[in-house]
Amino acid sequence: MKYEIRFSGSGGQGVITASVILGAAAALYDGKKVIQSQSYGPEARGGATKADVIIADEKIFYPKARRIDYLVSLTQKAADKFVNTVKEGGTIIIDGDFVDLPDSPNYRLLRLPLTSNTLAKFNRLTTLNIVSLGAFIEASKLVSAESVKRAVAEHSPAGFEEMNLASFDLGRELARTVAG
Amino acid sequence: MKYEIRFSGSGGQGVITASVILGAAAALYDGKKVIQSQSYGPEARGGATKADVIIADEKIFYPKARRIDYLVSLTQKAADKFVNTVKEGGTIIIDGDFVDLPDSPNYRLLRLPLTSNTLAKFNRLTTLNIVSLGAFIEASKLVSAESVKRAVAEHSPAGFEEMNLASFDLGRELARTVAG
Repeated sequence: MKYEIRFSGSGGQGVITASVILGAAAALYDGKKVIQSQSYGPEARGGATKADVIIADEKIFYPKARRIDYLVSLTQKAADKFVNTVKEGGTIIIDGDFVDLPDSPNYRLLRLPLTSNTLAKFNRLTTLNIVSLGAFIEASKLVSAESVKRAVAEHSPAGFEEMNLASFDLGRELARTVAG
Repeated sequence: MKYEIRFSGSGGQGVITASVILGAAAALYDGKKVIQSQSYGPEARGGATKADVIIADEKIFYPKARRIDYLVSLTQKAADKFVNTVKEGGTIIIDGDFVDLPDSPNYRLLRLPLTSNTLAKFNRLTTLNIVSLGAFIEASKLVSAESVKRAVAEHSPAGFEEMNLASFDLGRELARTVAG
């Protein structure tokens, strides 16, 4: 198996952190081969940030993500920019509060109210990236939730572990509700 | 120009964070093409973590670091593991308090007392990664210190900006003293 996952949004939303945590969880605790990368082109300054994770059972020879299996987009700009990088049959998770894409037979689209629920629960959006990570894990089951929780805890600044873990669970719950 | 930089150490020392900050600074504020990546193989579980940054003026076609121009190693295990990835004429920065490598005509070796000075100044080692980033910037001049400071500030958790910036300056000062 080999999967390509792309987190995208605007600078400061923590999409790199979400990807680093996912990669660490898959590699260190689920024993997968992983390459996590951010490549900055001109679009980085235009406000659409992306961070990629490739997760595989075998050695990964080509380290660049090319045909995305799972796209997570926290902004409209990022969704518009990267929707065409998703391969046929792929899954797209968007923040349904602010982002939309057309329905299509080419992908499964999950519109999750990430922002409104994060605000309602924590009164701030600091952990929107971790909420989206939880939603991705629930929708994909690519990495065990236990492994990701361990990595979330280890990557939490002092004092933020509990909020990050609660954010992860919130994302899982939102995906469970919508995706059935 | 094209340079490959590898930060290495043990898990939890923040070498990924140092690399992400360096990559963001070079791309967003110095206008360079950048790929920042971590690839996890079996050695990740053995305790030697690495994080790579490729910085170039032109589009980067091959995204994997292969011939390292600058290696930063915070542990002996990482230094031993990655010393042979440094290209001839490259530079190696090690934490001279705990790490050593043989002198060699093949590389420039900077032994910097990073741990002792970080402890002396901050009474903890949380920001050893940022100290090493400062040392790297001073030794390489590959990215402007102003750009990196901006990225350091933006990547600092609330309340840690000042300590991170002071850590960056400490690293620069140590490199200046040793490297002349």
